[in-house]
Amino acid sequence: MASYLITGTSRGIGLAMARSLASKPASEVSVVFAAARTQTDELKQLVAQSSGRVQSIPIDVENKTSVQAAAAIIEQALAGSGLDVLVNNVGIMPVTPNGIETMNDLDSVFHTNVTSAHIVTSAFLPLLKKGTQKKVINISTTLGSIAMAPRYAIFPVPAYKISKAALNMLTVQYAQSFADQGFTFLTLSPGWVKTALGGDRADLTTEESVQGLLEIVIPATQVDNGKFIRVRVPGWEEVEGINQYDGAEAPW
Amino acid sequence: MASYLITGTSRGIGLAMARSLASKPASEVSVVFAAARTQTDELKQLVAQSSGRVQSIPIDVENKTSVQAAAAIIEQALAGSGLDVLVNNVGIMPVTPNGIETMNDLDSVFHTNVTSAHIVTSAFLPLLKKGTQKKVINISTTLGSIAMAPRYAIFPVPAYKISKAALNMLTVQYAQSFADQGFTFLTLSPGWVKTALGGDRADLTTEESVQGLLEIVIPATQVDNGKFIRVRVPGWEEVEGINQYDGAEAPW
Repeated sequence: MASYLITGTSRGIGLAMARSLASKPASEVSVVFAAARTQTDELKQLVAQSSGRVQSIPIDVENKTSVQAAAAIIEQALAGSGLDVLVNNVGIMPVTPNGIETMNDLDSVFHTNVTSAHIVTSAFLPLLKKGTQKKVINISTTLGSIAMAPRYAIFPVPAYKISKAALNMLTVQYAQSFADQGFTFLTLSPGWVKTALGGDRADLTTEESVQGLLEIVIPATQVDNGKFIRVRVPGWEEVEGINQYDGAEAPW
Repeated sequence: MASYLITGTSRGIGLAMARSLASKPASEVSVVFAAARTQTDELKQLVAQSSGRVQSIPIDVENKTSVQAAAAIIEQALAGSGLDVLVNNVGIMPVTPNGIETMNDLDSVFHTNVTSAHIVTSAFLPLLKKGTQKKVINISTTLGSIAMAPRYAIFPVPAYKISKAALNMLTVQYAQSFADQGFTFLTLSPGWVKTALGGDRADLTTEESVQGLLEIVIPATQVDNGKFIRVRVPGWEEVEGINQYDGAEAPW
Protein backbone atom coordinates (compact mmCIF):
# COMPACT_ATOMS: atom_id res chain seq x y z
CA MET A 1 0.00 0.00 0.00
CA ALA A 2 2.46 2.53 -1.27
CA SER A 3 2.10 6.22 -2.02
CA TYR A 4 3.71 7.56 -5.18
CA LEU A 5 4.66 11.00 -6.41
CA ILE A 6 5.38 11.24 -10.14
CA THR A 7 6.52 14.44 -11.83
CA GLY A 8 5.77 15.30 -15.44
CA THR A 9 2.37 13.59 -15.55
CA SER A 10 0.70 15.84 -18.10
CA ARG A 11 1.52 13.31 -20.84
CA GLY A 12 3.89 10.57 -21.97
CA ILE A 13 5.59 8.20 -19.57
CA GLY A 14 4.56 10.14 -16.45
CA LEU A 15 0.86 10.07 -17.34
CA ALA A 16 0.99 6.40 -18.34
CA MET A 17 2.75 5.50 -15.10
CA ALA A 18 0.14 7.32 -13.01
CA ARG A 19 -2.59 5.50 -14.95
CA SER A 20 -0.93 2.12 -14.54
CA LEU A 21 -0.42 2.58 -10.81
CA ALA A 22 -4.01 3.74 -10.37
CA SER A 23 -5.22 0.49 -11.94
CA LYS A 24 -3.45 -1.63 -9.33
CA PRO A 25 -5.30 -2.86 -6.22
CA ALA A 26 -5.42 -0.57 -3.20
CA SER A 27 -3.37 -3.18 -1.35
CA GLU A 28 -0.45 -2.22 -3.61
CA VAL A 29 -0.99 1.45 -4.36
CA SER A 30 -2.71 3.78 -1.91
CA VAL A 31 -2.43 7.09 -3.72
CA VAL A 32 -0.67 8.58 -6.73
CA PHE A 33 0.26 12.25 -6.60
CA ALA A 34 0.38 13.25 -10.25
CA ALA A 35 2.51 16.39 -10.38
CA ALA A 36 2.41 18.53 -13.51
CA ARG A 37 2.81 22.12 -14.58
CA THR A 38 0.03 21.74 -17.16
CA GLN A 39 -3.26 20.07 -16.27
CA THR A 40 -3.97 18.38 -19.61
CA ASP A 41 -7.35 16.90 -20.46
CA GLU A 42 -5.90 13.39 -20.20
CA LEU A 43 -4.59 14.09 -16.70
CA LYS A 44 -7.88 15.67 -15.60
CA GLN A 45 -9.74 12.65 -16.94
CA LEU A 46 -7.47 10.22 -15.11
CA VAL A 47 -7.93 12.13 -11.85
CA ALA A 48 -11.72 12.30 -12.34
CA GLN A 49 -12.03 8.57 -12.97
CA SER A 50 -9.69 7.46 -10.19
CA SER A 51 -12.09 7.69 -7.25
CA GLY A 52 -9.58 9.86 -5.43
CA ARG A 53 -6.62 7.55 -5.92
CA VAL A 54 -4.90 9.95 -8.31
CA GLN A 55 -4.50 13.45 -6.97
CA SER A 56 -3.39 16.23 -9.24
CA ILE A 57 -0.58 18.40 -7.85
CA PRO A 58 0.28 21.65 -9.63
CA ILE A 59 4.05 22.05 -9.72
CA ASP A 60 6.88 23.72 -11.56
CA VAL A 61 9.78 21.40 -10.77
CA GLU A 62 12.30 24.02 -11.86
CA ASN A 63 11.12 26.38 -9.16
CA LYS A 64 12.04 25.72 -5.53
CA THR A 65 9.13 27.72 -4.13
CA SER A 66 6.63 25.85 -6.27
CA VAL A 67 8.13 22.50 -5.26
CA GLN A 68 8.02 23.40 -1.58
CA ALA A 69 4.39 24.42 -1.93
CA ALA A 70 3.65 21.05 -3.54
CA ALA A 71 5.45 19.29 -0.70
CA ALA A 72 3.26 21.10 1.83
CA ILE A 73 0.09 20.04 -0.01
CA ILE A 74 1.23 16.42 -0.19
CA GLU A 75 2.30 16.37 3.44
CA GLN A 76 -1.19 17.47 4.40
CA ALA A 77 -2.80 14.89 2.09
CA LEU A 78 -0.69 12.12 3.61
CA ALA A 79 -1.93 13.12 7.08
CA GLY A 80 1.08 11.97 9.02
CA SER A 81 2.20 9.16 6.74
CA GLY A 82 5.33 9.35 4.64
CA LEU A 83 5.79 9.33 0.88
CA ASP A 84 6.96 5.92 -0.31
CA VAL A 85 8.12 6.35 -3.88
CA LEU A 86 9.21 9.47 -5.80
CA VAL A 87 9.59 9.28 -9.58
CA ASN A 88 11.48 12.21 -11.12
CA ASN A 89 10.23 11.93 -14.68
CA VAL A 90 10.42 15.49 -16.04
CA GLY A 91 12.74 15.86 -18.99
CA ILE A 92 13.21 17.68 -22.27
CA MET A 93 15.17 16.67 -25.37
CA PRO A 94 15.73 19.61 -27.71
CA VAL A 95 17.43 18.87 -31.02
CA THR A 96 20.67 20.59 -32.05
CA PRO A 97 20.47 20.12 -35.83
CA ASN A 98 23.49 22.17 -36.91
CA GLY A 99 26.28 20.59 -34.89
CA ILE A 100 27.26 20.55 -31.24
CA GLU A 101 29.20 23.80 -31.68
CA THR A 102 25.85 25.56 -32.18
CA MET A 103 24.30 24.13 -28.99
CA ASN A 104 22.89 27.10 -27.08
CA ASP A 105 20.66 25.48 -24.49
CA LEU A 106 23.09 23.48 -22.37
CA ASP A 107 22.41 25.40 -19.15
CA SER A 108 18.64 25.36 -19.52
CA VAL A 109 18.46 21.66 -20.43
CA PHE A 110 20.68 20.88 -17.44
CA HIS A 111 18.41 22.90 -15.18
CA THR A 112 15.28 21.10 -16.42
CA ASN A 113 16.70 17.58 -16.56
CA VAL A 114 19.08 17.52 -13.58
CA THR A 115 18.60 20.44 -11.21
CA SER A 116 14.83 19.89 -11.11
CA ALA A 117 15.36 16.30 -9.93
CA HIS A 118 17.63 17.64 -7.20
CA ILE A 119 15.14 20.33 -6.18
CA VAL A 120 12.28 17.81 -5.97
CA THR A 121 14.30 15.10 -4.23
CA SER A 122 15.69 17.46 -1.61
CA ALA A 123 12.27 19.00 -0.94
CA PHE A 124 10.61 15.60 -0.47
CA LEU A 125 13.37 13.97 1.57
CA PRO A 126 11.63 14.60 4.91
CA LEU A 127 8.46 12.87 3.66
CA LEU A 128 10.46 10.08 2.00
CA LYS A 129 12.34 9.42 5.25
CA LYS A 130 8.95 8.82 6.90
CA GLY A 131 7.94 6.47 4.07
CA THR A 132 8.09 2.68 4.19
CA GLN A 133 9.88 2.17 0.85
CA LYS A 134 12.24 5.13 0.54
CA LYS A 135 12.56 4.78 -3.22
CA VAL A 136 13.61 7.57 -5.57
CA ILE A 137 13.49 6.79 -9.29
CA ASN A 138 15.13 9.10 -11.79
CA ILE A 139 14.04 8.61 -15.38
CA SER A 140 17.25 8.71 -17.37
CA THR A 141 18.22 7.08 -20.67
CA THR A 142 20.99 5.01 -22.18
CA LEU A 143 21.62 8.07 -24.37
CA GLY A 144 23.19 9.38 -21.16
CA SER A 145 25.59 6.43 -21.02
CA ILE A 146 29.05 7.71 -21.97
CA ALA A 147 30.20 4.14 -22.61
CA MET A 148 27.34 3.61 -25.07
CA ALA A 149 27.82 6.95 -26.86
CA PRO A 150 29.00 5.39 -30.14
CA ARG A 151 25.67 3.59 -30.49
CA TYR A 152 23.76 6.85 -30.28
CA ALA A 153 26.10 9.10 -32.27
CA ILE A 154 23.47 9.73 -34.94
CA PHE A 155 21.00 11.35 -32.53
CA PRO A 156 21.69 15.13 -32.52
CA VAL A 157 20.67 15.77 -28.90
CA PRO A 158 23.97 16.61 -27.17
CA ALA A 159 22.48 18.71 -24.36
CA TYR A 160 20.09 15.87 -23.52
CA LYS A 161 22.89 13.29 -23.48
CA ILE A 162 25.14 15.50 -21.34
CA SER A 163 22.33 16.26 -18.89
CA LYS A 164 21.43 12.59 -18.53
CA ALA A 165 25.05 11.59 -17.81
CA ALA A 166 24.93 14.25 -15.10
CA LEU A 167 21.58 12.92 -13.81
CA ASN A 168 23.17 9.48 -13.50
CA MET A 169 25.94 10.95 -11.34
CA LEU A 170 23.39 12.89 -9.27
CA THR A 171 21.55 9.61 -8.66
CA VAL A 172 24.73 7.86 -7.54
CA GLN A 173 25.66 10.75 -5.24
CA TYR A 174 22.25 10.60 -3.57
CA ALA A 175 22.44 6.80 -3.41
CA GLN A 176 25.73 6.98 -1.54
CA SER A 177 24.49 9.68 0.81
CA PHE A 178 21.33 7.88 1.89
CA ALA A 179 22.33 4.21 1.63
CA ASP A 180 22.62 3.92 5.39
CA GLN A 181 19.13 5.34 5.90
CA GLY A 182 17.47 2.56 3.92
CA PHE A 183 16.99 4.42 0.64
CA THR A 184 16.98 2.96 -2.85
CA PHE A 185 17.87 5.41 -5.60
CA LEU A 186 17.61 4.14 -9.18
CA THR A 187 18.31 5.72 -12.54
CA LEU A 188 16.27 3.96 -15.21
CA SER A 189 16.30 3.93 -18.98
CA PRO A 190 12.72 3.66 -20.28
CA GLY A 191 13.73 2.82 -23.85
CA TRP A 192 12.74 4.70 -26.95
CA VAL A 193 9.07 5.39 -26.35
CA LYS A 194 6.30 6.73 -28.58
CA THR A 195 5.73 10.03 -26.76
CA ALA A 196 5.90 13.68 -27.75
CA LEU A 197 9.60 13.44 -26.84
CA GLY A 198 10.32 10.11 -28.54
CA GLY A 199 8.21 10.56 -31.66
CA ASP A 200 6.07 8.11 -33.61
CA ARG A 201 8.97 6.01 -34.95
CA ALA A 202 9.97 4.94 -31.45
CA ASP A 203 10.16 1.28 -30.40
CA LEU A 204 7.77 1.04 -27.46
CA THR A 205 4.32 2.22 -26.48
CA THR A 206 4.15 4.17 -23.24
CA GLU A 207 2.26 1.23 -21.73
CA GLU A 208 5.01 -1.26 -22.63
CA SER A 209 7.70 1.00 -21.24
CA VAL A 210 5.80 1.83 -18.05
CA GLN A 211 4.99 -1.82 -17.35
CA GLY A 212 8.67 -2.68 -17.75
CA LEU A 213 9.74 0.21 -15.54
CA LEU A 214 7.31 -0.71 -12.77
CA GLU A 215 8.55 -4.31 -12.90
CA ILE A 216 11.91 -2.85 -11.88
CA VAL A 217 10.63 -0.24 -9.43
CA ILE A 218 8.20 -2.33 -7.42
CA PRO A 219 10.48 -5.26 -6.47
CA ALA A 220 13.59 -3.05 -6.11
CA THR A 221 15.34 -3.23 -2.76
CA GLN A 222 18.33 -1.58 -1.14
CA VAL A 223 20.60 -4.05 -2.96
CA ASP A 224 19.75 -2.10 -6.11
CA ASN A 225 20.60 1.29 -4.64
CA GLY A 226 22.59 3.39 -7.11
CA LYS A 227 21.99 1.16 -10.14
CA PHE A 228 21.41 2.27 -13.74
CA ILE A 229 18.97 -0.22 -15.25
CA ARG A 230 17.45 -0.61 -18.71
CA VAL A 231 13.75 -1.32 -19.00
CA ARG A 232 12.86 -4.92 -19.82
CA VAL A 233 10.23 -5.50 -22.48
CA PRO A 234 9.43 -9.05 -23.62
CA GLY A 235 10.47 -9.59 -27.22
CA TRP A 236 12.82 -6.60 -27.17
CA GLU A 237 15.62 -8.06 -25.04
CA GLU A 238 17.95 -8.26 -28.02
CA VAL A 239 17.59 -6.58 -31.38
CA GLU A 240 19.96 -7.51 -34.20
CA GLY A 241 22.37 -9.06 -31.71
CA ILE A 242 22.51 -5.93 -29.53
CA ASN A 243 21.21 -5.78 -25.97
CA GLN A 244 18.23 -3.52 -25.96
CA TYR A 245 15.40 -3.65 -23.42
CA ASP A 246 16.67 -6.51 -21.31
CA GLY A 247 16.38 -5.31 -17.72
CA ALA A 248 20.16 -5.41 -17.29
CA GLU A 249 22.37 -2.76 -15.77
CA ALA A 250 23.63 -0.30 -18.35
CA PRO A 251 27.27 0.83 -18.38
CA TRP A 252 27.97 4.39 -17.26
CA MET B 1 56.11 24.16 -33.29
CA ALA B 2 52.66 24.19 -31.81
CA SER B 3 50.54 27.04 -30.51
CA TYR B 4 48.62 26.50 -27.28
CA LEU B 5 45.71 28.22 -25.62
CA ILE B 6 45.20 27.38 -21.95
CA THR B 7 42.33 28.74 -19.87
CA GLY B 8 42.53 29.34 -16.14
CA THR B 9 46.22 30.32 -16.09
CA SER B 10 46.12 32.71 -13.15
CA ARG B 11 47.32 29.90 -10.86
CA GLY B 12 47.41 26.17 -10.27
CA ILE B 13 47.58 23.63 -13.09
CA GLY B 14 46.91 26.18 -15.83
CA LEU B 15 49.76 28.46 -14.75
CA ALA B 16 52.15 25.53 -14.31
CA MET B 17 51.24 24.17 -17.73
CA ALA B 18 51.88 27.54 -19.39
CA ARG B 19 55.23 27.73 -17.59
CA SER B 20 56.21 24.20 -18.57
CA LEU B 21 55.31 24.74 -22.22
CA ALA B 22 57.22 28.04 -22.30
CA SER B 23 60.35 26.21 -21.15
CA LYS B 24 60.29 23.85 -24.13
CA PRO B 25 62.30 24.62 -27.26
CA ALA B 26 60.70 26.82 -29.91
CA SER B 27 60.78 23.85 -32.23
CA GLU B 28 58.10 22.28 -30.03
CA VAL B 29 56.12 25.24 -28.71
CA SER B 30 55.74 28.45 -30.69
CA VAL B 31 53.44 30.42 -28.45
CA VAL B 32 51.31 29.93 -25.36
CA PHE B 33 48.19 32.03 -24.99
CA ALA B 34 47.63 32.17 -21.25
CA ALA B 35 43.97 33.04 -20.78
CA ALA B 36 42.82 34.21 -17.37
CA ARG B 37 40.19 36.42 -15.82
CA THR B 38 42.66 37.62 -13.18
CA GLN B 39 46.18 38.70 -14.11
CA THR B 40 48.00 37.43 -11.01
CA ASP B 41 51.56 38.46 -10.20
CA GLU B 42 52.78 34.95 -11.07
CA LEU B 43 51.15 35.11 -14.48
CA LYS B 44 52.51 38.62 -15.14
CA GLN B 45 55.97 37.43 -14.16
CA LEU B 46 55.77 34.40 -16.46
CA VAL B 47 54.68 36.58 -19.37
CA ALA B 48 57.43 39.16 -18.66
CA GLN B 49 60.16 36.51 -18.54
CA SER B 50 58.97 34.57 -21.58
CA SER B 51 60.44 36.74 -24.35
CA GLY B 52 57.04 36.96 -25.96
CA ARG B 53 56.40 33.22 -25.97
CA VAL B 54 53.65 33.50 -23.35
CA GLN B 55 50.96 36.00 -24.18
CA SER B 56 48.40 36.99 -21.61
CA ILE B 57 44.80 36.92 -22.82
CA PRO B 58 42.12 38.49 -20.64
CA ILE B 59 39.05 36.28 -20.70
CA ASP B 60 35.92 35.37 -18.80
CA VAL B 61 35.23 31.88 -20.09
CA GLU B 62 31.68 31.98 -18.75
CA ASN B 63 30.85 34.89 -21.01
CA LYS B 64 30.41 34.32 -24.74
CA THR B 65 31.18 37.93 -25.67
CA SER B 66 34.41 37.88 -23.69
CA VAL B 67 35.43 34.57 -25.27
CA GLN B 68 34.71 35.84 -28.77
CA ALA B 69 36.79 38.95 -28.07
CA ALA B 70 39.66 36.73 -26.93
CA ALA B 71 39.30 34.65 -30.10
CA ALA B 72 39.62 37.80 -32.22
CA ILE B 73 42.80 38.84 -30.36
CA ILE B 74 44.34 35.40 -30.77
CA GLU B 75 43.37 35.18 -34.43
CA GLN B 76 45.20 38.44 -35.02
CA ALA B 77 48.25 37.27 -33.03
CA LEU B 78 48.41 34.05 -35.06
CA ALA B 79 48.49 36.13 -38.26
CA GLY B 80 46.89 33.56 -40.52
CA SER B 81 48.04 30.43 -38.74
CA GLY B 82 45.68 28.17 -36.82
CA LEU B 83 45.56 27.31 -33.14
CA ASP B 84 47.02 23.87 -32.53
CA VAL B 85 46.04 22.89 -28.99
CA LEU B 86 43.28 24.18 -26.71
CA VAL B 87 43.32 23.25 -23.03
CA ASN B 88 40.06 23.92 -21.18
CA ASN B 89 41.37 24.03 -17.64
CA VAL B 90 38.95 26.32 -15.79
CA GLY B 91 37.15 24.63 -12.95
CA ILE B 92 35.76 25.18 -9.47
CA MET B 93 35.14 22.70 -6.66
CA PRO B 94 32.91 24.15 -3.95
CA VAL B 95 32.31 21.99 -0.88
CA THR B 96 28.80 20.98 0.21
CA PRO B 97 29.48 20.22 3.87
CA ASN B 98 25.92 19.57 5.08
CA GLY B 99 24.76 16.86 2.71
CA ILE B 100 23.86 16.71 -0.98
CA GLU B 101 20.29 17.75 -0.17
CA THR B 102 21.64 21.19 0.78
CA MET B 103 23.57 21.64 -2.50
CA ASN B 104 22.55 25.03 -3.87
CA ASP B 105 25.16 25.68 -6.55
CA LEU B 106 24.54 22.92 -9.06
CA ASP B 107 23.61 25.25 -11.92
CA SER B 108 26.47 27.66 -11.36
CA VAL B 109 29.10 24.92 -11.00
CA PHE B 110 27.79 23.31 -14.18
CA HIS B 111 28.04 26.63 -15.99
CA THR B 112 31.64 27.19 -14.86
CA ASN B 113 32.90 23.64 -15.31
CA VAL B 114 30.99 22.47 -18.39
CA THR B 115 29.30 25.28 -20.30
CA SER B 116 32.48 27.38 -20.25
CA ALA B 117 34.38 24.55 -21.97
CA HIS B 118 31.64 24.44 -24.60
CA ILE B 119 31.69 28.22 -25.07
CA VAL B 120 35.46 28.27 -25.49
CA THR B 121 35.65 25.19 -27.72
CA SER B 122 32.92 26.39 -30.04
CA ALA B 123 34.42 29.88 -30.29
CA PHE B 124 37.88 28.57 -31.15
CA LEU B 125 36.78 25.84 -33.56
CA PRO B 126 37.48 27.93 -36.67
CA LEU B 127 41.06 28.57 -35.51
CA LEU B 128 41.49 24.95 -34.39
CA LYS B 129 40.35 23.70 -37.81
CA LYS B 130 43.19 25.72 -39.33
CA GLY B 131 45.66 24.26 -36.81
CA THR B 132 48.04 21.40 -37.50
CA GLN B 133 47.23 19.35 -34.38
CA LYS B 134 43.52 19.93 -33.77
CA LYS B 135 43.72 18.89 -30.12
CA VAL B 136 41.23 19.92 -27.45
CA ILE B 137 42.03 18.88 -23.89
CA ASN B 138 39.42 19.12 -21.18
CA ILE B 139 40.74 18.97 -17.64
CA SER B 140 38.40 16.63 -15.84
CA THR B 141 38.93 14.31 -12.87
CA THR B 142 38.31 10.73 -11.84
CA LEU B 143 35.94 12.24 -9.26
CA GLY B 144 33.73 12.65 -12.33
CA SER B 145 33.87 8.91 -13.03
CA ILE B 146 30.49 7.43 -12.10
CA ALA B 147 32.01 3.95 -12.06
CA MET B 148 34.64 5.09 -9.54
CA ALA B 149 32.18 6.97 -7.32
CA PRO B 150 32.51 4.55 -4.37
CA ARG B 151 36.21 5.37 -4.09
CA TYR B 152 35.48 9.08 -3.72
CA ALA B 153 32.36 8.90 -1.56
CA ILE B 154 34.05 10.71 1.32
CA PHE B 155 34.69 13.89 -0.69
CA PRO B 156 31.68 16.20 -0.19
CA VAL B 157 31.81 17.89 -3.60
CA PRO B 158 28.68 16.58 -5.38
CA ALA B 159 28.26 19.51 -7.77
CA TYR B 160 31.88 19.13 -8.89
CA LYS B 161 31.49 15.38 -9.45
CA ILE B 162 28.23 15.84 -11.37
CA SER B 163 29.69 18.62 -13.52
CA LYS B 164 32.77 16.56 -14.38
CA ALA B 165 30.69 13.54 -15.42
CA ALA B 166 28.87 15.97 -17.71
CA LEU B 167 32.18 17.39 -18.97
CA ASN B 168 33.24 13.85 -19.88
CA MET B 169 30.09 13.41 -21.95
CA LEU B 170 30.60 16.84 -23.55
CA THR B 171 34.10 15.73 -24.55
CA VAL B 172 32.82 12.50 -26.10
CA GLN B 173 30.09 14.34 -27.99
CA TYR B 174 32.64 16.74 -29.48
CA ALA B 175 35.00 13.85 -30.19
CA GLN B 176 32.32 12.07 -32.21
CA SER B 177 31.33 15.23 -34.06
CA PHE B 178 34.84 16.14 -35.22
CA ALA B 179 36.52 12.74 -35.55
CA ASP B 180 36.28 12.88 -39.34
CA GLN B 181 37.93 16.31 -39.43
CA GLY B 182 41.12 15.07 -37.79
CA PHE B 183 40.44 16.29 -34.25
CA THR B 184 41.60 14.71 -31.01
CA PHE B 185 39.46 15.50 -27.98
CA LEU B 186 40.69 14.21 -24.62
CA THR B 187 39.31 14.43 -21.11
CA LEU B 188 42.14 14.09 -18.62
CA SER B 189 42.35 13.50 -14.90
CA PRO B 190 45.28 15.49 -13.45
CA GLY B 191 45.29 13.67 -10.11
CA TRP B 192 44.95 15.26 -6.71
CA VAL B 193 47.20 18.28 -6.98
CA LYS B 194 48.53 20.77 -4.43
CA THR B 195 46.67 23.84 -5.73
CA ALA B 196 44.17 26.27 -4.24
CA LEU B 197 41.52 23.77 -5.38
CA GLY B 198 43.28 20.61 -4.22
CA GLY B 199 44.72 21.88 -0.96
CA ASP B 200 48.06 21.20 0.74
CA ARG B 201 47.34 17.56 1.60
CA ALA B 202 47.13 16.60 -2.07
CA ASP B 203 49.34 13.94 -3.65
CA LEU B 204 51.12 15.77 -6.45
CA THR B 205 52.86 19.06 -7.06
CA THR B 206 51.52 21.09 -9.97
CA GLU B 207 54.79 20.39 -11.80
CA GLU B 208 54.43 16.62 -11.41
CA SER B 209 50.85 16.70 -12.61
CA VAL B 210 51.55 19.01 -15.53
CA GLN B 211 54.52 16.98 -16.72
CA GLY B 212 52.37 13.85 -16.64
CA LEU B 213 49.53 15.60 -18.47
CA LEU B 214 51.81 16.93 -21.21
CA GLU B 215 53.26 13.45 -21.66
CA ILE B 216 49.73 12.44 -22.65
CA VAL B 217 48.82 15.57 -24.63
CA ILE B 218 51.93 15.93 -26.78
CA PRO B 219 52.09 12.42 -28.26
CA ALA B 220 48.29 12.02 -28.47
CA THR B 221 46.91 11.23 -31.90
CA GLN B 222 43.48 10.71 -33.44
CA VAL B 223 43.51 7.13 -32.13
CA ASP B 224 43.04 8.67 -28.68
CA ASN B 225 40.07 10.81 -29.69
CA GLY B 226 37.36 10.68 -27.05
CA LYS B 227 39.43 8.99 -24.36
CA PHE B 228 39.33 9.66 -20.60
CA ILE B 229 42.89 9.23 -19.34
CA ARG B 230 44.47 9.43 -15.89
CA VAL B 231 47.73 11.32 -15.49
CA ARG B 232 50.81 9.13 -15.17
CA VAL B 233 53.32 10.06 -12.47
CA PRO B 234 56.33 7.81 -11.82
CA GLY B 235 56.11 6.19 -8.39
CA TRP B 236 52.37 6.86 -8.15
CA GLU B 237 51.12 4.25 -10.62
CA GLU B 238 49.67 2.11 -7.83
CA VAL B 239 49.02 3.13 -4.24
CA GLU B 240 48.01 0.47 -1.72
CA GLY B 241 47.10 -1.90 -4.53
CA ILE B 242 44.81 0.61 -6.24
CA ASN B 243 45.48 2.09 -9.68
CA GLN B 244 46.22 5.72 -9.19
CA TYR B 245 48.28 7.87 -11.56
CA ASP B 246 49.10 5.23 -14.14
CA GLY B 247 48.32 6.83 -17.49
CA ALA B 248 45.53 4.33 -18.14
CA GLU B 249 42.04 5.03 -19.39
CA ALA B 250 39.62 5.64 -16.55
CA PRO B 251 36.17 4.06 -16.55
CA TRP B 252 33.24 6.38 -17.17
